[in-house]
Amino acid sequence: IMSSENTMDDEDTFKILIATDVHLGYLEKDAIRGNDTNNTLNEILKCAKTNQVDFILLGGDLFHENKPSRKCLHNCITMLRKYCMGDSPIQFNILSDQTVNFNTTQFPWVNYQDENLNISIPVFSIHGNHDDPTGAEGLCALDLLCAAGLVNHFGHSQSVERIEISPILMQKGNTKLALYGLGSIPDERLYRMFVNNQVTMLRPKEDQDDWFNLFTIHQNRSKHGPTNYIPEQFLDDFLDLVVWGHEHECLITPTRNEQQLFYVTQPGSSVATSLSPGEARKKHIGLLRVKGRKMNLQKIPLKTVRQFFIQDVVLADYQDRFTPDTPQVTKKVEDLCYAKVTEMLEEAERERLGCPLTPEKPLIRLRVDYSGGFETFNTARFSQKFVDCLANPKDIIHFVRRREQKEDIKDEVNIDYSKLLKTTAAEGLRVEDLVKQYFEAAEQTVQLSLLTEQGMGKAIQEFVDKDEKDAIQELITYQLEKTQRHLQARGVTSEQEIDTEVRRFRDSKKNTTEEENDIKEAINRARAHRLERGDQPADLDISSELADINMDFDEDPIPAPTRGRGRGGRGRGGRGRGRAFQAPSQRSHSATTASYTADDLLSF
Amino acid sequence: IMSSENTMDDEDTFKILIATDVHLGYLEKDAIRGNDTNNTLNEILKCAKTNQVDFILLGGDLFHENKPSRKCLHNCITMLRKYCMGDSPIQFNILSDQTVNFNTTQFPWVNYQDENLNISIPVFSIHGNHDDPTGAEGLCALDLLCAAGLVNHFGHSQSVERIEISPILMQKGNTKLALYGLGSIPDERLYRMFVNNQVTMLRPKEDQDDWFNLFTIHQNRSKHGPTNYIPEQFLDDFLDLVVWGHEHECLITPTRNEQQLFYVTQPGSSVATSLSPGEARKKHIGLLRVKGRKMNLQKIPLKTVRQFFIQDVVLADYQDRFTPDTPQVTKKVEDLCYAKVTEMLEEAERERLGCPLTPEKPLIRLRVDYSGGFETFNTARFSQKFVDCLANPKDIIHFVRRREQKEDIKDEVNIDYSKLLKTTAAEGLRVEDLVKQYFEAAEQTVQLSLLTEQGMGKAIQEFVDKDEKDAIQELITYQLEKTQRHLQARGVTSEQEIDTEVRRFRDSKKNTTEEENDIKEAINRARAHRLERGDQPADLDISSELADINMDFDEDPIPAPTRGRGRGGRGRGGRGRGRAFQAPSQRSHSATTASYTADDLLSF
Repeated sequence: IMSSENTMDDEDTFKILIATDVHLGYLEKDAIRGNDTNNTLNEILKCAKTNQVDFILLGGDLFHENKPSRKCLHNCITMLRKYCMGDSPIQFNILSDQTVNFNTTQFPWVNYQDENLNISIPVFSIHGNHDDPTGAEGLCALDLLCAAGLVNHFGHSQSVERIEISPILMQKGNTKLALYGLGSIPDERLYRMFVNNQVTMLRPKEDQDDWFNLFTIHQNRSKHGPTNYIPEQFLDDFLDLVVWGHEHECLITPTRNEQQLFYVTQPGSSVATSLSPGEARKKHIGLLRVKGRKMNLQKIPLKTVRQFFIQDVVLADYQDRFTPDTPQVTKKVEDLCYAKVTEMLEEAERERLGCPLTPEKPLIRLRVDYSGGFETFNTARFSQKFVDCLANPKDIIHFVRRREQKEDIKDEVNIDYSKLLKTTAAEGLRVEDLVKQYFEAAEQTVQLSLLTEQGMGKAIQEFVDKDEKDAIQELITYQLEKTQRHLQARGVTSEQEIDTEVRRFRDSKKNTTEEENDIKEAINRARAHRLERGDQPADLDISSELADINMDFDEDPIPAPTRGRGRGGRGRGGRGRGRAFQAPSQRSHSATTASYTADDLLSF
Repeated sequence: IMSSENTMDDEDTFKILIATDVHLGYLEKDAIRGNDTNNTLNEILKCAKTNQVDFILLGGDLFHENKPSRKCLHNCITMLRKYCMGDSPIQFNILSDQTVNFNTTQFPWVNYQDENLNISIPVFSIHGNHDDPTGAEGLCALDLLCAAGLVNHFGHSQSVERIEISPILMQKGNTKLALYGLGSIPDERLYRMFVNNQVTMLRPKEDQDDWFNLFTIHQNRSKHGPTNYIPEQFLDDFLDLVVWGHEHECLITPTRNEQQLFYVTQPGSSVATSLSPGEARKKHIGLLRVKGRKMNLQKIPLKTVRQFFIQDVVLADYQDRFTPDTPQVTKKVEDLCYAKVTEMLEEAERERLGCPLTPEKPLIRLRVDYSGGFETFNTARFSQKFVDCLANPKDIIHFVRRREQKEDIKDEVNIDYSKLLKTTAAEGLRVEDLVKQYFEAAEQTVQLSLLTEQGMGKAIQEFVDKDEKDAIQELITYQLEKTQRHLQARGVTSEQEIDTEVRRFRDSKKNTTEEENDIKEAINRARAHRLERGDQPADLDISSELADINMDFDEDPIPAPTRGRGRGGRGRGGRGRGRAFQAPSQRSHSATTASYTADDLLSF
């Protein structure tokens, strides 16, 4: 039975196939896994065709390599031409200024509007960190497909000073969809740009509430470091749905950000590029339906993805069977691992029954924590036993020593900064003093290069209040880098001069609280503005306000509630924000025109 | 005034733009010359569009690098999409089996017949040695363009054992054009395959005389070594015109091969990739018109090509001005060179007047023969004087010492083989003995790898009759390689075993005369067959038989003579040759069908 989602399908419903991190070409020389990514891209494109979607939305990392091999490019071009060209008519229009949306080719218009190409399924993609633009021309692999008219690359910010995200405004029947995208940018840089108000999203000036606002981003979502990710709170709250690329774990079921009032879907990669737990979760793509302001995201399991099973074994937990002193303990440990792997292989085989598209050999990973005096065994010999029945015989076993590992990391940090930290802690210095001391302690010729986020960050972490340290560190880091650039620009060389500069910096800040507040304000800006505009506070349950989300394949869709107050209360939301980066000086647009130029967009 | 060629243009006339060796991406990082190849490809494509040609024919090396940079590919795709897509209707049909013609993509049909692409100018290209197929998939850069539908890559032989060149059979009005192509193959291998009857060209069985036969090849035409080129005599004599790629010197005016009764045009590269005399000749592309069996090749000078002037100076010729003993001779030499370069620069500037598309800075090369006791001067300092006025300041001057150079080469040859050769010469051994001795002399572990064409070839050159040596060497080389493969396959390791093998080889040949005759026969095969079939012998003037050739832009075309006897006398030419590699076992074709399958072709 086809699911209830189909009952939603009509001339007003956008059907969008959502996928990300295809990593085409990953391990393409591997005898077993070499064709995996091809097979899955093929499945994804076929799925889009079968479901007669309006378009495909990719969240970056279509390619695994920045410079994909000829074979890889050839495969990709071939598949796109095969599945995305044809006679099916395109049912939606683009109303925005396409020269702004598609700025990486000499053909700045959506491919399906090119009179020389017969496109049946347009693909829209941002670039990821794997296939990001390089070289003087700022071209990425995607741009080759783009030049050939096979893909529409969007969300490429040409400036490093300021990012202005201008949406692709689409209309299908009565549904208006604003598609925003931002190609991958190093997390720490983007984090800082958000903090410094250098990221702007544009919205249509008129009838803002008519638009469904969809944003695609390719960044760390989980916190890899204090500023090495993008907090959801940084994203504008007028958004309805964020498609989050880059994270490989499939968390495709939209989760609600209660503060920002938007949903986030993280489709996850369509191939496991590491043998970590996140990759072991079943891989899916999504079929997103948008009708008016309602949406529905249907999970579609991928059938061609190689199975991946992972288990942890802590040897110290098996005291009833062996201890480090047990005779022939290594043999016993190996036997245990053998049993575990065999068990996983059997499970894989059971699951694969009736799935002809699933590759025969699964990926198996056993993480063995051998801390507590155990020894490792010969993995080469172990692997030999499984060489014919799984896809990764060479790296089934991964030995870990949890406690020792942690200590190692700590030692590493202390190598460079222990001396400095001891002094600092003993004397009860404040952040500003630390900055000065840092300058003084380091060799003059080296110090400028030592001024890295990591270095300072780790030092600061040791003595400031845990709750505030991230925020403070971000600011300090930023200030230090600014100072560093400043010093370099001025050609400062003598220690005295540097000292003066540091003092100037120190004087410019009264205490850590002030700095901390700067950051807090930045992080909470979206919330503050929502409150200013009289929106409902974030802690209220407004689930009925946003569109219904229906993930279950066979369930009936939740009937679309009438959009209560809508977001009309916001009016020209953001005007009072005081950060109107793009306040168009001339507004000559006609309210009746159907297409949107820069003058018809408002910065947010 | 538009030239007389236009009077030939009608619904029966193929207009074909001919170019080769574009070397897109050559020196793309050079600050001055980086954009040269882009500009010229742009000019070529624009010229094709302006002249409303039916198609573009490229003779290989569209790309300079086997793996072109992203920028280079992006440029190429962009230009092809810009100039070769559009609404102009295509006026010719393809009658041959396209799955045979276009065998490198999953879209084995000419791009303009793809219903999803709107092609205005189809490009047909063979690959060159620079952009030849590599990897397990045998794909070349051209195949990316091919997969994207921007180029039609043909002439790619998938087999290394046997080459079968099947023509693209085209018809425009009443004109029938058979387009043959053979992508670049290492010269020595192809030479041997010709000698061994492993190269076959297919022809339509019916109405052979109706076809204009055009062949595109990318090989050495000039003799770089005994078997390191392809003699024109190797090519089948039913051809009407050969477009010869790879050679960079522009010799685009067709020259007649009186033996083979065909014409050869060598368009030459559209960029100078070396500062040699051949590259200094004015670059052209060709506009080939074919109507019935008549043809006309119009030379079109390229306007965007950087000027290149080269001069030779032999210092010993200036005895009236200086000798090696003259005081401050080096200064005088440098002054002379300065004057020569300045002179060339002035000439370049005069020529460039009124040519806005020609790059401002020319290429200048002065070859200074300083043999006879002269010394070189500091070229770095010399270059400095011209750094702003020419494109290659770093390598203007090229010092040569003619006599010494030759001796160097001879010494090099003797390093490895002198000992062997002395013995051979002294004892008056024959070729077979040399082979044996060669095996015995070399260290056993090394000898198999020593069995190269070069090694043996050079050794043999020293003692055999000059007239025959090429032929003999080719055969010996081939036999040795075969023996080598045979030995390796059998795992032969001991010297005794090798000795036995060599004796077997030796016994299989009675004397050099026999071997020589094998080759002679191969070389003269075309002529022999022509005689067999009762054709007119090659030494007769039959210029009126073949189509008129008119190169002069403003001349009236020579009126097309009635094709006297035509070539009908050949009947199903080649049937009696005894080398029917492709003798179709079933011939079920209907004589009335308009399209040609394998059954309708005859091997030649």
